[in-house]
Amino acid sequence: MDMGTRGQSGGAGDGPGLMAALGPDMAIIEQAMQDDLATLAGDIDALLAEVLHYGLFNGGKRIRPLLTVLCWRLAGGGKVKSGVDIYRLAIAFEYLHCATLFHDDVIDQALIRRGRPAVNVAYGETPAILAGDFLHARSMLLVGKEGGGQALEVFCGATTAMVDGEFRQLRNARNYNLAEADYFAVIKGKTAQLIGATCEIGALAAGVGSEGQQALRDYGLQLGCAFQIIDDLLDYLGDEASTGKSVGNDFREGKMTLPLILAIARAEDTDRERLLAMLASGEERHTGFAEASALIVRYDGFVRARQQAEEMIAKALSRLRLFDQDAVQQERAMLEGLAAYVLNRRK
Amino acid sequence: MDMGTRGQSGGAGDGPGLMAALGPDMAIIEQAMQDDLATLAGDIDALLAEVLHYGLFNGGKRIRPLLTVLCWRLAGGGKVKSGVDIYRLAIAFEYLHCATLFHDDVIDQALIRRGRPAVNVAYGETPAILAGDFLHARSMLLVGKEGGGQALEVFCGATTAMVDGEFRQLRNARNYNLAEADYFAVIKGKTAQLIGATCEIGALAAGVGSEGQQALRDYGLQLGCAFQIIDDLLDYLGDEASTGKSVGNDFREGKMTLPLILAIARAEDTDRERLLAMLASGEERHTGFAEASALIVRYDGFVRARQQAEEMIAKALSRLRLFDQDAVQQERAMLEGLAAYVLNRRK
Repeated sequence: MDMGTRGQSGGAGDGPGLMAALGPDMAIIEQAMQDDLATLAGDIDALLAEVLHYGLFNGGKRIRPLLTVLCWRLAGGGKVKSGVDIYRLAIAFEYLHCATLFHDDVIDQALIRRGRPAVNVAYGETPAILAGDFLHARSMLLVGKEGGGQALEVFCGATTAMVDGEFRQLRNARNYNLAEADYFAVIKGKTAQLIGATCEIGALAAGVGSEGQQALRDYGLQLGCAFQIIDDLLDYLGDEASTGKSVGNDFREGKMTLPLILAIARAEDTDRERLLAMLASGEERHTGFAEASALIVRYDGFVRARQQAEEMIAKALSRLRLFDQDAVQQERAMLEGLAAYVLNRRK
Repeated sequence: MDMGTRGQSGGAGDGPGLMAALGPDMAIIEQAMQDDLATLAGDIDALLAEVLHYGLFNGGKRIRPLLTVLCWRLAGGGKVKSGVDIYRLAIAFEYLHCATLFHDDVIDQALIRRGRPAVNVAYGETPAILAGDFLHARSMLLVGKEGGGQALEVFCGATTAMVDGEFRQLRNARNYNLAEADYFAVIKGKTAQLIGATCEIGALAAGVGSEGQQALRDYGLQLGCAFQIIDDLLDYLGDEASTGKSVGNDFREGKMTLPLILAIARAEDTDRERLLAMLASGEERHTGFAEASALIVRYDGFVRARQQAEEMIAKALSRLRLFDQDAVQQERAMLEGLAAYVLNRRK
């Protein structure tokens, strides 16, 4: 998934106000990445440096590092002199995210990423795999150095969960009777655990106790799951002009996402069999998107999927209540705003 | 490169005696890997577990973990109770090595690895990329937990150097006037730095001072370079029945290795131009191996490359002299034996 798309959504709680509030941190994060690459410049191959620049600086919104910084501040980081360079720690999450995108785009043979040729297209598959490996190692180094052993353990746990989620997804392919629980196991591993770790490590770096760490981890987990559900909804319902990508990709690929799973689970026999027959036919997956969407509507698949995302965002917000000190209400409002953004984004 | 090939070489200083001496440690390393995967078993996808087993347990000789354990013991590890699980630390190097092989085999579209279908063939490219990422993360976690922050820094430095070396090699492709210095920059990054880190981290874990760490790092660096030179020699001179692979691959691919670089540097104008013309022609690279080999012989390319490897092994051995206590002479003899093995191996 890509939590770093450009632009504003039209929903409540985000929009220009949120973006303006996040602007200064976003600028420092951007600079921290530039500075880190600059320290490497003399030591690494010029082509590798070029690939890293191309892949890292592409208009991403840096949601993950923002979460680290905001959670760190919410949990009291910055109040005490700790020696942690929180921005340097935070960019590790963007590095890992980009490493994953480089490898995903090789795996999916993707052509475009954020409106430009993907790294594997611009430079070839070998540089894409290798540059991903480089960022992967660099991200671990940053977390180990800036966050310490416990942070590294959380970070590596999230990374291995991510790979595990991808494997589950592979195994689920062509299983058209996929259960809701299988779907959530995949999105937790693929998406949510890293977002959870992003928030947890911010809390850890702030030196807050385990209750605070757990609260922010949960916030991130719920946020990450909701993000993925919305992503999957947009693949059916998105406005192609806003999202910049065509709808119906998941159905065409026979990918079982929540709206479809919920519809199949509730459909009457004939409709369920019709959906399963369409999924089983390569041709009907290509021609049957409108019919499938209508059947999902009939069984409230979209509405119910969105309800689940809303419930998750509500849970995420409830986990922020622990942080009720006056001094951190601005950070709390930003994290609430990010949660609303996830729910209301149109692209 | 693959330092984990099966079997004995016929040279001095290795053979059955060395293998028998290394046997107990090799068995514990094997078990430590099995145990580590067993702890993961409930938590990871069954297909991922299968791919990891397939890719990790394939008759490799575990040279890297052996180096960690032997260097640790040589540097006084085991004499004091330190709480370091040296075998758990050591297997991180095998994990990283295998992660690299998984990705290399995807990049090279390799079919066979150690006499069996490569992971990308047996399970597909996607599982190969993802399982490599998993092992990569797991190796970092083990080093961070068992070796601490300094070890992690050395380890990540070697990993990023490895990727950097691969990029230099990419950039060097089709540069038939490659200088010796460029060749060494590539093999240091691709091969030698990780072997150096393997030895250095063993020393670090033993708590020896910086002089001892540096000595063992140098030992590993020289050993790694020599290994790669011998690998490149075998690609011209190897006995196909022993090595199990055909000769001439590097020349066919236009890959500039030391024998060829040395020959081109010393050849008379007509011979140099002949070699460069052959390299520039895809057809002549396929048909001209015997002629090219003869020209390399004429300008002592093979003899001189081997001399360089011998000098490096001599330097490696000289760095072990620091460890002159009676109690560690058995470990020292094993590390000397491994160096001799590298030089004299036939496959």
